[in-house]
Amino acid sequence: MPRINPERVLSDLRKLATFGTYKTGVHRPTLSDQDIAAREWFANRLREAGLDAEIDGVANILGRSRANGKKALSGSHLESQNYAGWLDGALGCVYALEAARAIAEDPATADLGVDVVVFSDEEGHFGSFMGSRSFVGLLDESEIDAASDRATGMTMREGLTKAGWNGKPRHLIDPARYAAFFEAHIEQGATLESSGQKIGVVTAIVAIWQYRITVLGEQNHAGTTSMQRRRDASRELIQLLAAVDARFQKVAGERSVWTVGRIDVEPGEKSIIPGKAQALFQLRDADPAVLARMEASLHEEVARANSSGRCDIQTERLSASTPALMDEGLQAALDTAAEVTAPGGHIRMPSGAGHDAQWLARKLPAAMMFVPSINGVSHHWTENTSDADIVLGAQVFADAIVEALRRR
Amino acid sequence: MPRINPERVLSDLRKLATFGTYKTGVHRPTLSDQDIAAREWFANRLREAGLDAEIDGVANILGRSRANGKKALSGSHLESQNYAGWLDGALGCVYALEAARAIAEDPATADLGVDVVVFSDEEGHFGSFMGSRSFVGLLDESEIDAASDRATGMTMREGLTKAGWNGKPRHLIDPARYAAFFEAHIEQGATLESSGQKIGVVTAIVAIWQYRITVLGEQNHAGTTSMQRRRDASRELIQLLAAVDARFQKVAGERSVWTVGRIDVEPGEKSIIPGKAQALFQLRDADPAVLARMEASLHEEVARANSSGRCDIQTERLSASTPALMDEGLQAALDTAAEVTAPGGHIRMPSGAGHDAQWLARKLPAAMMFVPSINGVSHHWTENTSDADIVLGAQVFADAIVEALRRR
Repeated sequence: MPRINPERVLSDLRKLATFGTYKTGVHRPTLSDQDIAAREWFANRLREAGLDAEIDGVANILGRSRANGKKALSGSHLESQNYAGWLDGALGCVYALEAARAIAEDPATADLGVDVVVFSDEEGHFGSFMGSRSFVGLLDESEIDAASDRATGMTMREGLTKAGWNGKPRHLIDPARYAAFFEAHIEQGATLESSGQKIGVVTAIVAIWQYRITVLGEQNHAGTTSMQRRRDASRELIQLLAAVDARFQKVAGERSVWTVGRIDVEPGEKSIIPGKAQALFQLRDADPAVLARMEASLHEEVARANSSGRCDIQTERLSASTPALMDEGLQAALDTAAEVTAPGGHIRMPSGAGHDAQWLARKLPAAMMFVPSINGVSHHWTENTSDADIVLGAQVFADAIVEALRRR
Repeated sequence: MPRINPERVLSDLRKLATFGTYKTGVHRPTLSDQDIAAREWFANRLREAGLDAEIDGVANILGRSRANGKKALSGSHLESQNYAGWLDGALGCVYALEAARAIAEDPATADLGVDVVVFSDEEGHFGSFMGSRSFVGLLDESEIDAASDRATGMTMREGLTKAGWNGKPRHLIDPARYAAFFEAHIEQGATLESSGQKIGVVTAIVAIWQYRITVLGEQNHAGTTSMQRRRDASRELIQLLAAVDARFQKVAGERSVWTVGRIDVEPGEKSIIPGKAQALFQLRDADPAVLARMEASLHEEVARANSSGRCDIQTERLSASTPALMDEGLQAALDTAAEVTAPGGHIRMPSGAGHDAQWLARKLPAAMMFVPSINGVSHHWTENTSDADIVLGAQVFADAIVEALRRR
C-alpha cells in the first residue's frame, strides 16, 4: 500500500496558509488576489505531480491522471470564508494531491489513477456551490453573469477576468471516467474530539430546510396601548419561537439541529410596539422523515398562534434540499482503511454542513471522510487540527482510495 | 364662564398643520425650517392675544399675561415626531392659547391670568424633554452643546443659530407666579374611545423602567454543532423573554405594559449560531410597587436562565423614572368642568406616555387632560380626533383653568 509523505502534506498545507494569512488562519475569498495566487500555485503543484492540470472558466481546477482504467476523482475547495481557518477546504485538496502522488509513487499502486479537482466558491461568496454545480452541469452562464461577492460587490466576471480565466471552457464531469468521488474535510464539529475518534466516515450530508417567519402586528405607542389592545409582533414572534423550540425537543431526531440565525424587529425603537417581526429559521437532518415531522410541527405551532393570537403570522419556505447519501461500498472502504491506521478510532456520522460531495453524489458514488477539529471550532481563524491527526487522516484517505479502486 | 371660539380653535390647528404637512399629518422635527416657522407664527398669535411672548435660547416660547394675581401656566409642544400626526402637541398649545383668549374676553373672568408656554423638543429629536427640563432648571448649556438630531445629525446649536435664537437667555420658571400647570393632549390610546368617554383626567404619568438584556453564547456553525453542545444566544434570549412574559402576566398590575422594542442577533446569518443576542425591554406603570415587583421577576427569570442555561445573561437597567402624580385638587377641577360640558363623559386614568407635565409637576401643582384619539392611533400621520371632540375639549380645558384659579 502507498505511504503518504507527512512532511510534504504539512508543508503544502502551510504553503497554502501563506496565501491570505490572517492571524493563525486565512482570509482568502473566492477570486481575491490571494485566492487566484493559491489556485495558480496549486495547479502547478498538480503538474509537478504528473497530472494535466487546467483552471477553467469558473475557477475550478481539474488535474487529470494519465493512468489507464477507471479513476478516482478527489478534491475539495481552496477559498476560505472571510477571516477564517487554514484547513477548511485546503485539507481536502492537499489530501487528494497527496493520494495522487503517493499512489503513483508506489509501484504496487502506480496503475491506479487519481484525478484531483478543486471546486471554486464552495464557501458561497458569489453564490451556492458555483464550482461543483458547474462541474456536474447544473450551472448556467447567466448565473455567473449575475454573481457578485456578497461582501465586496466585485462581480464574478470581474474576478475571472482579473485572473485571466473568464470565457475559458468549463470542466464538465465525465462519469464514465470515474469509479468514485472522495472528499476529505475537517469535521467542523466536536463529535470526533469528544469521543476520542480520529476518522469520521460520513453516512450522509444532511438536508437543510430554511424558512422565513413573518409576524405582522400593529405598530403603536408602547406606553398608551394596553396589553389587551396591542398587537405586538415581537411578543408574538418570541412566544411562537419558544413554543416551536419546546415542541422540537420532543419531535426532532437525535442529530437534528435547528437555529434562529436572525431576528429583525421593526421599527426597533424602545418605546414603539413593533408592527413587524421576522426570523430566519433553519432545520438540518439527514432523514427526510424527521425533517417532514419537524416542518409539520412548525406549521402546527404557527396555526395555533394564528388562531389564538392577535397578529398575522406567515411562514415562507426559502429552501429545502434533499440529504445526499454517501455510497455504502465507499464507506466500507473508508472503514477498512481507517481500521489499519487507527484501529477502533473511526465512526460513521452524518455531515451537518454542506459540501461539494453532495453535488458529486448526483453523478458518482461519493464518499466523505472527516478528521477532528480542535474544540470543534469552524469558520474562525482559530480553527485547527493537530499535525498528528492531519498526517493520520492523509494516510487513511489514500488507503481508502486504493481500497475502493481495487474492490471494483 | 368663558365661551371658547370653536372656529378659532380649529382654524389655528389647521394653520399649524400647514407647517410641514405630510399626507394628513405633519413632519415637523424640532428646529427644522417648518418648526421654526411654526414657532414664529405661534409667538405672534400669542402677541395678538395680548400676551408678552418671547422665544428663548432653547426654542421654548413663553407668553406672559399682564393680569394681576396668581396665574395659570398652560401649554405643550409644537414639534412633531417624524412623519406623524397634526394634533400631538399642537392641540395642547392651541387649547392653552384659546383658554387665555376666552378667559380674557369674558368680563367675568378677565381678571384671571393664563401664561402660555410651548416647550421645545418634547418628542426627543435632540434629547429627553430638553425644553421642559430647561424651564424647570434641570438642563445645563453643555447638554445643548452636545445635542444633535438623531435622524439628520444637525446639532441643536446649528438649529438654534439658523433660527436666530442661539445664546438668547432661557426662560426659567417662577413658581411664585403660578397657581397651577395645565396641559392638554390627545390620549394616544383607545381607552376613551372604547368606553365612549370624551375627557380623560390624568391621575399620574407612568414611570418608565428600561433594560438592555444581553445574552453571550458562542458563535458556531449551525450544521456541525449539536444541540447538546451549542451555546445559542438567540435560543436562550427567546426562551428567557417568553418566560418573563408568562411571569409578567401573573405579577403585573392591571394597567402595566411591557415591550420588547428591539432585538439584535449577531452575526445574523442563517447558517451561523448567534454568539450574542440583545433585547431592549421596557416596563411602564404608575405604581412604584408594581414596577419593583416586575423588575424582581425579571431578575429571577434571568437568574434561573443563568443557572440552568449554557449562556451568560446580563441585564443592565438603562433608566428608571418615578411616576409623576397629578394634583388632586386640579383633577377635581377638571372633573367639575367636564361634568358641565360632557356629563358622565369623563374618567380618571393614568398617562402611559411621558409628557412635559411630568417635569412641571416638580415645581407646580400639575394637571393633564386627554381627548379621544380615533382608533387610538398615535405617532403616525393618520392620528386624528373628531372636530366635535376637539371643540368640546377646548371648552372643558378653559373651564377647568377658571375653576382652579377661582378655588384658590
